[in-house]
Amino acid sequence: MNCRVIASGWTRFGRREEGLVDLACAAGRAALEGAGREPIDLLVVGHMLSGEGEGVSHLVAQVADRLGLGPAAGWRIDAASASGAAAFHSAALAVASGRYERALVIGAEKMTHLPTPQVTRRLATSLAPVEQAVGATMPGLAALVAQRYLARYPAAEAAIAEVTVRARANAVRNPVAQFTSPVSRESVEQSRWVAPPLRLLHCAAISDGAAAVVVERGGGVATVAGLGQAFSPPALADRSDSTCFAATREAARQAFASARCSHDEVQVAEIHDAFAPFALINLEDLGFAEPGEGARFFGPAGSGPAPQLQVNPSGGLLGRGHPVGASGLAQIAEISAQLRGDAGPTQMDGSPRWGLAQSIGGLGAQNFVTILGREGAP
Amino acid sequence: MNCRVIASGWTRFGRREEGLVDLACAAGRAALEGAGREPIDLLVVGHMLSGEGEGVSHLVAQVADRLGLGPAAGWRIDAASASGAAAFHSAALAVASGRYERALVIGAEKMTHLPTPQVTRRLATSLAPVEQAVGATMPGLAALVAQRYLARYPAAEAAIAEVTVRARANAVRNPVAQFTSPVSRESVEQSRWVAPPLRLLHCAAISDGAAAVVVERGGGVATVAGLGQAFSPPALADRSDSTCFAATREAARQAFASARCSHDEVQVAEIHDAFAPFALINLEDLGFAEPGEGARFFGPAGSGPAPQLQVNPSGGLLGRGHPVGASGLAQIAEISAQLRGDAGPTQMDGSPRWGLAQSIGGLGAQNFVTILGREGAP
Repeated sequence: MNCRVIASGWTRFGRREEGLVDLACAAGRAALEGAGREPIDLLVVGHMLSGEGEGVSHLVAQVADRLGLGPAAGWRIDAASASGAAAFHSAALAVASGRYERALVIGAEKMTHLPTPQVTRRLATSLAPVEQAVGATMPGLAALVAQRYLARYPAAEAAIAEVTVRARANAVRNPVAQFTSPVSRESVEQSRWVAPPLRLLHCAAISDGAAAVVVERGGGVATVAGLGQAFSPPALADRSDSTCFAATREAARQAFASARCSHDEVQVAEIHDAFAPFALINLEDLGFAEPGEGARFFGPAGSGPAPQLQVNPSGGLLGRGHPVGASGLAQIAEISAQLRGDAGPTQMDGSPRWGLAQSIGGLGAQNFVTILGREGAP
Repeated sequence: MNCRVIASGWTRFGRREEGLVDLACAAGRAALEGAGREPIDLLVVGHMLSGEGEGVSHLVAQVADRLGLGPAAGWRIDAASASGAAAFHSAALAVASGRYERALVIGAEKMTHLPTPQVTRRLATSLAPVEQAVGATMPGLAALVAQRYLARYPAAEAAIAEVTVRARANAVRNPVAQFTSPVSRESVEQSRWVAPPLRLLHCAAISDGAAAVVVERGGGVATVAGLGQAFSPPALADRSDSTCFAATREAARQAFASARCSHDEVQVAEIHDAFAPFALINLEDLGFAEPGEGARFFGPAGSGPAPQLQVNPSGGLLGRGHPVGASGLAQIAEISAQLRGDAGPTQMDGSPRWGLAQSIGGLGAQNFVTILGREGAP
């Protein structure tokens, strides 16, 4: 693609006093700082929930103004809970076209200022109209997916709590994560029901926060090697199989086809674990495990189907927190930092050569896969 | 840019019974039809107001589903009242990058189902926070711009009503326009005050509607020759001059620099006449007239500073209607149709070789200029 990610920035995730524009600008400034304050000629902001909540319907202009990006171009992207990933794709393509030299991409969301039922209702606006009409919620439908998955692969059930345990253990090392303490398997399994089989600690938390990256023309470390994305019917009932996300499978196929790396070469992946069972499904959809085998990633160390692969070193959505418009970009910020050897306390031993980010929009209606690599990597 | 616009589609603008997704899909289908139903691999939807109004926060997935665009990629773009133009820019850049072959771009908005004060309040969310805090509205601030402009150039006042008269006369020929009857100078000047010097018929109407284009790789007629855009401080008080829009000037500079055509060669322009005085300002900002000379376009035929230029053959925002997320794309759909000789009842004599579209986001906080031309045109 002839562009690469040269810097990452974050705010701390969690309950924040600052407003949406403040958070977006703070992450943006951190990434600009990392990029050595080189001039930016494109600004893309990913953000899901808008309008009434914050009274901001032209977010990109507010951010451009506050960051002093006078002559830059830009737009805001919305692709539900994958808005951050979509923002990255649109910016990387614009840079790769040759029209822009260096883009600042920001994903941001402010959620905790609203009462939880209101957040739940607003998140549900990304569901299919037929689902909204009967009062369905995101966790409710995610629970249906999990139920069907566990009905087909009952042996996977034991791994679900372990997804959260590992996410929280990784988050402890991440200075921007919402959750700073580990949890035991018992706490997960004794947390209150949200919608069976999902308990509270199986669900990513409502969170404020922002992440940012700078993308510039040229190759090298953290080159954008593969972009994939695809739609599925928004309504769960319109899909032939609810134990996987077809859009992730198609997005992964596209991304691997253009990245020309194999699954065995990918050493780090940030995946969309908004609900713990999705971690298993995602690893299968991405091709790292056969259908029903995703649980093997969460058994004894080294026993998984892709032993070289580290999953969600940042803590993922379950550990870092899930400000919906930020998560997809926080993943890419983390993966690129890992590849640059720049990830600080979450840095893996040695810098990986290939990394992957996977983001889910809505309940799998539009999924994204992004592969970053080292140009010329064997 | 190595991409061109091969087809345009519209719904009728005005008060429509259909919902937002229906309108977007109807325009999209019309453009796909015009493109010979060639496969699409990218879908970009421009839309300003979202969320509470329609309960749709993942519009692009709804549209992809209804149009049967399974494996396509896409995103929704928001850049306030320039969302349609921004959607076009992001899609053209993605096609030009080589990653996608053929994009469907849709701009859509649904406004008339809400009471007017609520629409006014929602449109005002694109103003600067400091302006929103004091209850400013878009027409109120547009009136301030017009007042300052007329204070500096008092001779221009006589032309303002003529902007609407011509817009409505052109709209009569446009089968998708909201307004189907002409208006006299007297009706404009006797219509009720909105905010002096703006009267009702100086202001584009609240409207529902959608427009669409298909962009494909390659050159030829309606090639994307120049893209320009820039930000200005959202707050009017933060700008050094309120009698022009600096962001349009910068956007025009960029677009003309890459299009390598001169102003004399541009035969058709669709400009953002959301408020009649803006037509004068825009023509000056675009470089077709000196500051204060825009009124000369609205004098006797042939007396203007750029006699070859036809302005808003579609009727513009004042005549066609202004569904905010659709307008920026309706302009590009019209210009490309004019260049292809495909504009039906609004077609100019002979097919122009170069055309320009100009769109304003918010109150000039982020403006866009798009130049389409014939590749290899002299």
